Amino acid sequence: MNINAENNCIVIFGASGDLTYRKLIPALYNLYKIGRLTENFSVLGVSRTELTDDDFRQKMRLALIEFEGAEGEKLDNFCQHLYYIAINTSDALEYGKLVPRLDELHDKYQTGGNTLYYLSTPPSLYGIIPECLAAHGLNTEEFGWKRIIVEKPFGYDMKTAKALDTQIHRFFEEHQIYRIDHYLGKETVQNLLVLRFSNGLFEPLWNRNFIDYVEITGAEQLGVEKRGGYYDGSGAMRDMFQNHLLQVLAMVAMEPPAIINADSMRDEVAKVLHSLHPLSDDDLEHNLVLGQYTSSIIDDKKVNGYLEEVGVPAGSTTETYMALRCEIDNWRWAGVPFYVRTGKRLPTRVTEIVIHFKTTPHPVFSQKAPENKLIIRIQPDEGISMRFGLKKPGAGFEAKEVSMDFRYADLASPSVLTAYDRLLLDAIKGDATLFARTDAVHACWKFVQPIIDYKAENNRIYEYEAGTWGPTQADKLIARTGRVWRKPSGCMKKKV
Amino acid sequence: MNINAENNCIVIFGASGDLTYRKLIPALYNLYKIGRLTENFSVLGVSRTELTDDDFRQKMRLALIEFEGAEGEKLDNFCQHLYYIAINTSDALEYGKLVPRLDELHDKYQTGGNTLYYLSTPPSLYGIIPECLAAHGLNTEEFGWKRIIVEKPFGYDMKTAKALDTQIHRFFEEHQIYRIDHYLGKETVQNLLVLRFSNGLFEPLWNRNFIDYVEITGAEQLGVEKRGGYYDGSGAMRDMFQNHLLQVLAMVAMEPPAIINADSMRDEVAKVLHSLHPLSDDDLEHNLVLGQYTSSIIDDKKVNGYLEEVGVPAGSTTETYMALRCEIDNWRWAGVPFYVRTGKRLPTRVTEIVIHFKTTPHPVFSQKAPENKLIIRIQPDEGISMRFGLKKPGAGFEAKEVSMDFRYADLASPSVLTAYDRLLLDAIKGDATLFARTDAVHACWKFVQPIIDYKAENNRIYEYEAGTWGPTQADKLIARTGRVWRKPSGCMKKKV
Repeated sequence: MNINAENNCIVIFGASGDLTYRKLIPALYNLYKIGRLTENFSVLGVSRTELTDDDFRQKMRLALIEFEGAEGEKLDNFCQHLYYIAINTSDALEYGKLVPRLDELHDKYQTGGNTLYYLSTPPSLYGIIPECLAAHGLNTEEFGWKRIIVEKPFGYDMKTAKALDTQIHRFFEEHQIYRIDHYLGKETVQNLLVLRFSNGLFEPLWNRNFIDYVEITGAEQLGVEKRGGYYDGSGAMRDMFQNHLLQVLAMVAMEPPAIINADSMRDEVAKVLHSLHPLSDDDLEHNLVLGQYTSSIIDDKKVNGYLEEVGVPAGSTTETYMALRCEIDNWRWAGVPFYVRTGKRLPTRVTEIVIHFKTTPHPVFSQKAPENKLIIRIQPDEGISMRFGLKKPGAGFEAKEVSMDFRYADLASPSVLTAYDRLLLDAIKGDATLFARTDAVHACWKFVQPIIDYKAENNRIYEYEAGTWGPTQADKLIARTGRVWRKPSGCMKKKV
Repeated sequence: MNINAENNCIVIFGASGDLTYRKLIPALYNLYKIGRLTENFSVLGVSRTELTDDDFRQKMRLALIEFEGAEGEKLDNFCQHLYYIAINTSDALEYGKLVPRLDELHDKYQTGGNTLYYLSTPPSLYGIIPECLAAHGLNTEEFGWKRIIVEKPFGYDMKTAKALDTQIHRFFEEHQIYRIDHYLGKETVQNLLVLRFSNGLFEPLWNRNFIDYVEITGAEQLGVEKRGGYYDGSGAMRDMFQNHLLQVLAMVAMEPPAIINADSMRDEVAKVLHSLHPLSDDDLEHNLVLGQYTSSIIDDKKVNGYLEEVGVPAGSTTETYMALRCEIDNWRWAGVPFYVRTGKRLPTRVTEIVIHFKTTPHPVFSQKAPENKLIIRIQPDEGISMRFGLKKPGAGFEAKEVSMDFRYADLASPSVLTAYDRLLLDAIKGDATLFARTDAVHACWKFVQPIIDYKAENNRIYEYEAGTWGPTQADKLIARTGRVWRKPSGCMKKKV
């Protein structure tokens, strides 16, 4: 029988959790709706909670109606593909129940045994689930492919990351492991590659000769909300910097891949991460700023400081803000600083990359040359904006900064995929390009480990008022070379 | 007495003509209105028509009301600065009448003798007027500056251009002569210099390494209208190409000037024009297309062919379309073709420069790289537009061409100057930067003389239907290297 390679059963561990009904099921529904899934797929929800298939279907159905506005025949048909089984996911014996259930689904949907495991569970289970699956032979690729998707965090530091990999690698090979970073699923992050590698206009400028410095900002407007307990064990460095922002940095800085496949692309990502200039204590003293927000009045309302948030332990020194100047030791980037910052309770929610080009080598017109910037907005208002100088109307030749914008929303394409749509689809197709490979994850940890150690020794956290752009020390960090952080504001202009 | 160097009397020869009330007086009025003229100026209209000061004021007043919506005190005050004298401008004796009249105005307005002569007359008087002025000492700069503005055409070919210069130079020195090309007064043309020389983003790309080819288009939608008689003696080559388009080409291609003054800028313009690759007969056979429009139906209306236009002699072989591939023999541009075309009765009215960048050296994503273009629109909808590739939404890494636009109108600046505003103001200030210098004019004629000679020998004119983009031979001209003419359409998108 000729089985479509994309026919498969998706097993979601932690199926009763938020992520499942907020992100995973909606993503699968969207893919189904636009015809990107074969009819031969099934989803098997797994968790401790006792639910019947119908209970699970009903719960997912309501979520799809609420969050996706789903309705009609497509919704009905989609829900028929959902199944559920309750087991204690820490107990290897219980996995015996999975076997006949999966056999049944593989038969029914002619999947040839193709199985995608999605670990939407606490990280403490990342080692256990693979082991339990393996105990019943559910990891072997004798009949159909077996892939396992792991959500971040991929470890807590270099040591735990390595330990986690060792655990998973005992039962799954690297080609089976899909470490998901939803940032890489975003159109604008992927667009970085197209922007850079498809345009003769940008390609020649993308190096130390023409770029002055790069800013990467991941700003959140909210505080830790109800996740204080979880967040306190993580902090800005682990929550945003070590994974999302370093991945984004890698895509800004990587060399063009030799060919377009997962390994070739990920080779280049790993190369950049390995080229990050190792942080000495001296670097960290001058180039790292950690901060924690204090209470403030925003829009006439008092907002909590971090230490007042629910679930945050008294006297916590967890950073809610981090700014770092880093450099990349390779021919393309030597000497170009990358200023990366992230934080909670900043004035606005925005993730963006700003490429600051060098000014002209000599000012032809007797005035300061206008700044030249390319702003790549990852969220919200995905798009790009170019700032440069044009002639100020009137006599003379004075320049005025103007901007040209492109908003992704203007493409108004029905084929826009959300981050989870794209990544789930890629995992089903076996395309690991946008998933983190173990060497890249290790390179990230290797780079940030000195920060962890430095913080453990010094614990120097600066306060910043909620609703401001972080500690003033961060401004000084960038001001040392005469630069300033961009203050992103509002939306890009809409086209008519 | 300390005389403001900008106090002056403007003497307009040909004051009863269209240009005076449609362009020159409105420009002076605008400058007056926005405070760019001192109160100490006067305008003395000169022509054969018998008019009193009051007649002239009334006529100009009505034109200002009609064309500029002028009103109120500013208008009244402005008109008080207008004067008129009727003389036979071909008769040196009659210029004697000018002397007392000018003395009186110089006294009244404390101009120190500063005089700007504007020759808004048929070219046949360009030699005579300077001679007549000189006969009465009105050209000497003993008391105040004397400048003379000459409208195109600056000659009819190399020989007549040189003869004209010789005539004018007998009585005026080069620094006194302001050859006006209203194209150079346009904001967007001047903006070319700011765009190129103020932006670190564009400067590195502006050469043979990154630019594939350049297109310069000056398209008119109208036919020759009632000017058939005049136009037939000129043609597209003299009317648009030899002056406007070659000047624009020079500003696209020139090196940065050493300093910002008239001579330094014009040195660079002249250098480019001198570097134009001389056209051999072989070049002309392959790289020149001349055309003439034939009658057609546009919007259900029959429009005349050129030969049916009023004033056009039977069997005329004057070109109403011209396309030329030229090259610039210098280090910056060697090997980069400049495709220049102009014509009447084309589908739309547009003047634009299109910089076509090379594609990436190797296609990273398995597809044709998107075109990268910078479109500089001189008229209408002055602005710039950048076209490049971004990621097509959805799976994969396919690129889609998108555009980012900037419209000058969005600056909505009250200080926008029209071409004549700017150029008259510059002439009053003694800034000749945007006026053509004699060596540049000669370089243009030197470049086009082979075209004139070639046409005289071959007289190969292709027909094109009114309302089309010129003869099909022009498409073949550019298609030889796999390129196509851009088909500019509509307006740039408006911002909200």
